[in-house]
Amino acid sequence: MPGKKAGSKSRRILGIDPGLASSGWGVVEFSDGRLRHIAHGCVNTDKEKSRSERLSFIYTSILEIAKTHKPSEAAMEKLYFGRNVSSAMLVAEARGVLLLALNMLELDLKEFTPNEIKKAVVGVSRAEKNQIQEMVRFILGLKEIPKPDHAADALGAAICAAHETLLK
Amino acid sequence: MPGKKAGSKSRRILGIDPGLASSGWGVVEFSDGRLRHIAHGCVNTDKEKSRSERLSFIYTSILEIAKTHKPSEAAMEKLYFGRNVSSAMLVAEARGVLLLALNMLELDLKEFTPNEIKKAVVGVSRAEKNQIQEMVRFILGLKEIPKPDHAADALGAAICAAHETLLK
Repeated sequence: MPGKKAGSKSRRILGIDPGLASSGWGVVEFSDGRLRHIAHGCVNTDKEKSRSERLSFIYTSILEIAKTHKPSEAAMEKLYFGRNVSSAMLVAEARGVLLLALNMLELDLKEFTPNEIKKAVVGVSRAEKNQIQEMVRFILGLKEIPKPDHAADALGAAICAAHETLLK
Repeated sequence: MPGKKAGSKSRRILGIDPGLASSGWGVVEFSDGRLRHIAHGCVNTDKEKSRSERLSFIYTSILEIAKTHKPSEAAMEKLYFGRNVSSAMLVAEARGVLLLALNMLELDLKEFTPNEIKKAVVGVSRAEKNQIQEMVRFILGLKEIPKPDHAADALGAAICAAHETLLK
């Protein structure tokens, strides 16, 4: 079947939305040009614990999640910094251990800007958060918007990685 | 021997100056109130490699260094952000994997602001880089200033952790 190469191989994409307090994750399967929701969730860390311990929990959790859902690749939002640089630093530390985990798992990572993800999911790069979440729900044929927000964002990154192939 | 508690137990402090391209490290021993230089060096990562691979190299290298020099605790400069926020993000990712490694090694970490380190090493919180390096050399009784800069900074953090005890 010419022109169908990209969709003919089944791919499982693990999307991640990093954070120290809470890292969202979502797994989608992309097969024969169709997207299917596999699972999603959130790794929440204990605020009473040290930063090292919380990062360690994120690291071991993502290894567990990958063991369960066997992704073939990963997707994440690119480094960006909003108004709060201090909290962005904590996000970056969490990203560090997640990147390390992906390397240990030998998973290729695709990174996208927030606008690239919006464009892939909603079709325009200027979309509101609830629009994106509603489109994530629609694209994956879910009854309800995936919760919490971090998990929906992670699924958005995974959809973007699949979408990129569709566009090629 | 009353009043000698802090110095009577031998401690090995691993100081780390995190960075993606280059992470400095230095080990000092603090015993009977005296500081001794054990080793120092730098983990340099290959710019041609992916960020995940570079972070993984930092992670495995610091585990190796700890295996060789058997520190009992660790010290690092606190998160700060200079003019270049993008590069600070890369430093934070490296910090993330270093914090993870310290947790795996069950090493307690002390973090200090740049000013705290300057004050501990030079005696004043407004010191120039070369003053700090010269004092690191002097305190540890080295013939030359430890090179590269990242390693000298790492030794500075380790000295600060020991100094903190001296002040108590």
